[in-house]
Amino acid sequence: MRTLIKNIPHHAENTVTVKGFVESVRNLKHVQFLTIRDGSGALQIVNEKSPINEENTSIINSLTEGSAASFTGKVCISPKVKLGGVELQLQSIKLYSLAKSPLPISKDSSLEKKIDNRAVSLRDPAQRLVYQVQTSMITAMNEFWADNDFTIMFSPKIMGTASESGAEVFKIDYFGRDAYLAQSPQFYKQMGVAGGIEKYAEIGPVFRADPSSTPRHNSEFISVDMEVAWIDGHEDIMDLEERFLTHIFERVASAHGKTISKEFGIDITVPKQPFPRITLQEGREILQQKGHFIEENDDLDPAGEKLLGQHFMEAHGHDFVFVTEYPSSVRAFYHMRSENNPMVTKSFDLLYKGTEITTGAQREHRLDILMSQAEEKGLSEAHLQHYFNTFLYGCPPHGGLGLGLGRLLSGMLGQRGITPVTFLPRTMTRITP
Amino acid sequence: MRTLIKNIPHHAENTVTVKGFVESVRNLKHVQFLTIRDGSGALQIVNEKSPINEENTSIINSLTEGSAASFTGKVCISPKVKLGGVELQLQSIKLYSLAKSPLPISKDSSLEKKIDNRAVSLRDPAQRLVYQVQTSMITAMNEFWADNDFTIMFSPKIMGTASESGAEVFKIDYFGRDAYLAQSPQFYKQMGVAGGIEKYAEIGPVFRADPSSTPRHNSEFISVDMEVAWIDGHEDIMDLEERFLTHIFERVASAHGKTISKEFGIDITVPKQPFPRITLQEGREILQQKGHFIEENDDLDPAGEKLLGQHFMEAHGHDFVFVTEYPSSVRAFYHMRSENNPMVTKSFDLLYKGTEITTGAQREHRLDILMSQAEEKGLSEAHLQHYFNTFLYGCPPHGGLGLGLGRLLSGMLGQRGITPVTFLPRTMTRITP
Repeated sequence: MRTLIKNIPHHAENTVTVKGFVESVRNLKHVQFLTIRDGSGALQIVNEKSPINEENTSIINSLTEGSAASFTGKVCISPKVKLGGVELQLQSIKLYSLAKSPLPISKDSSLEKKIDNRAVSLRDPAQRLVYQVQTSMITAMNEFWADNDFTIMFSPKIMGTASESGAEVFKIDYFGRDAYLAQSPQFYKQMGVAGGIEKYAEIGPVFRADPSSTPRHNSEFISVDMEVAWIDGHEDIMDLEERFLTHIFERVASAHGKTISKEFGIDITVPKQPFPRITLQEGREILQQKGHFIEENDDLDPAGEKLLGQHFMEAHGHDFVFVTEYPSSVRAFYHMRSENNPMVTKSFDLLYKGTEITTGAQREHRLDILMSQAEEKGLSEAHLQHYFNTFLYGCPPHGGLGLGLGRLLSGMLGQRGITPVTFLPRTMTRITP
Repeated sequence: MRTLIKNIPHHAENTVTVKGFVESVRNLKHVQFLTIRDGSGALQIVNEKSPINEENTSIINSLTEGSAASFTGKVCISPKVKLGGVELQLQSIKLYSLAKSPLPISKDSSLEKKIDNRAVSLRDPAQRLVYQVQTSMITAMNEFWADNDFTIMFSPKIMGTASESGAEVFKIDYFGRDAYLAQSPQFYKQMGVAGGIEKYAEIGPVFRADPSSTPRHNSEFISVDMEVAWIDGHEDIMDLEERFLTHIFERVASAHGKTISKEFGIDITVPKQPFPRITLQEGREILQQKGHFIEENDDLDPAGEKLLGQHFMEAHGHDFVFVTEYPSSVRAFYHMRSENNPMVTKSFDLLYKGTEITTGAQREHRLDILMSQAEEKGLSEAHLQHYFNTFLYGCPPHGGLGLGLGRLLSGMLGQRGITPVTFLPRTMTRITP
């Protein structure tokens, strides 16, 4: 029977077995001290050197940092022990795996070196916390979807034709013919909605062959997608995302608020609803006042997003800001255009701490208009045939969003880009380990 | 404000708006009847032909099956209406999308034709039920993981070297060099466990370039993976899977039992614990009595699995049976071998209704033994370098399983193979839509 280290204080004077990685060994004249760590915490283990303990003493002499072993001994409450006021008086050891010494990385190693040695770098409690927070986020999403009648779908990642624009897709050899990796589940989630899946939800990988390698871009990342039928406008999708994110923040704050504050020095605050909403034009004016100029028909650049994020934090105490009324020139052909002004789309971006984490929109569900918008963007009809078929046999008005899981997680933990919160990142220069 | 059709009876004599797809139009001399369907049910709508209703009458005359529209009218409880004893007396219609007529498929169309026309075939309530059941399964998995301290991880689907055996992987053009699609998260989940993620969970796509196209095999499918540290043997993983599956069946039975019985004619029964467990040798003997022979060092064939499933259903009233003690000759090199007999692995398969839905095992965590087992299988060391590195710096004993989501779902609903329960299947001959 294994006892988790966090539960050790409940077993005073009893004999228990703990299992974990060796963190340090101090070999003194008459006594040996070990620190071992499991998923729940760290513990001091003491071995008095004496003839009856000779076998243990000799095993401990061989132990290296990182070795995996189990330790049986008596739990002693001892207020003078810094590590939790408790220690284990060793009776026996079972060594499962002796680590090569020294470990290839230390706390101060570069991020790249840490990724090269993932099985070691993950043992840092702050790293493990990243994925515990991720777990709570995913759990919160599933709760929200269950409570709001969403259907969880899985769309294929292998496509017969390059998705959306055709740019920046990876090509596969598919039984001797060309296929492509999905850049997003966009077309498929719309197909689901046209098929009567009124609230579509998906979590899955997407793939972008983006040769501009910035810390914000990985060539593979997890996208959280929703698509909803019978909306009245893109504002419905913005409202949905506010409620969705608020639920996620509530879960993360209650499960990990204290630990995140300790490990990352960041307070998780549940965002106030409604989130600030501005038009792109208003954003441009705010930026202009700060000396940052965005041309009329241009999208925000990353520097502009960052400045806007700072502005809304300072002026409104809010980490989020929705930006709406993007010109059709910078948006995908399937974004619906405004009834009043066809140069403007019914779409939005959501910035979180100055980084775009979501693009959302009402979609154009009227096939004739959709086809003319595709043509206007110079897209080939043949290429989009399967997509256009989605709208042939009746399609409700609908809209949705894609949320970058890593960008949200990275922002929450105050990290720069998604690489530090990605288990095994894939970039232009990295496909291992 | 939209009212869902299932809630219509609560609004007697009130004016409400319903939104959905037109299922049928009956145009009589003095009256028109429509049936429309939303995600929650179907409803009859009545339009009396009269001069003041002329506009509605003319819109209805143009309506085709599948068209998407909203209907406002007065709710009339009327016991003589077959469809739920309620109808909507029409006041106004808004047509959003007129379907091309006739629809390209009917109830009796082939599965392939239905997949070709997914936006239409999904509207069948039985099809939508498939994905509602899937949603409850995923929700149940997340609940189980939250309750049992699992960490939800996402491993990359792009790999630098072909995974496991190197056979049957898809090759990608990755910025001018070769990369591969992951056949399973096997190596990554073990890396997670070596990194201190003591209970690793993942749901994600896996890719197999399997040229033998059977109804059980798609080239892309969803794998549910778990990997757990500090186990005492593969039996711990079998116990885990029993509890996991039981929780899933409880959720599905309570949420959809009645509807599944209605749409698929199948009763969802929560499996009794413990599940039957037999050795492969015992399985061979049962099959031999039925005249089906499996050679000493061979795996079960699909026909054998089917017969065993039938046997355990008939003799023990159980849909599941674990098969253990597979010879090392038919198992992956990383399966741990038995202490008593190195020809036998500490692994198992789980059969559900005669189909293998899981392979699981304790993994070999001792690098020297792992390397010699790889060599014995003729695998190249260079190829496995990143994998072997996982075990260099300490690794706890561990094991895990992979569960095919589609096979479980297919079995639950009494379907043949995973194609009928896959949103957009990918096979050797199909990469569209």
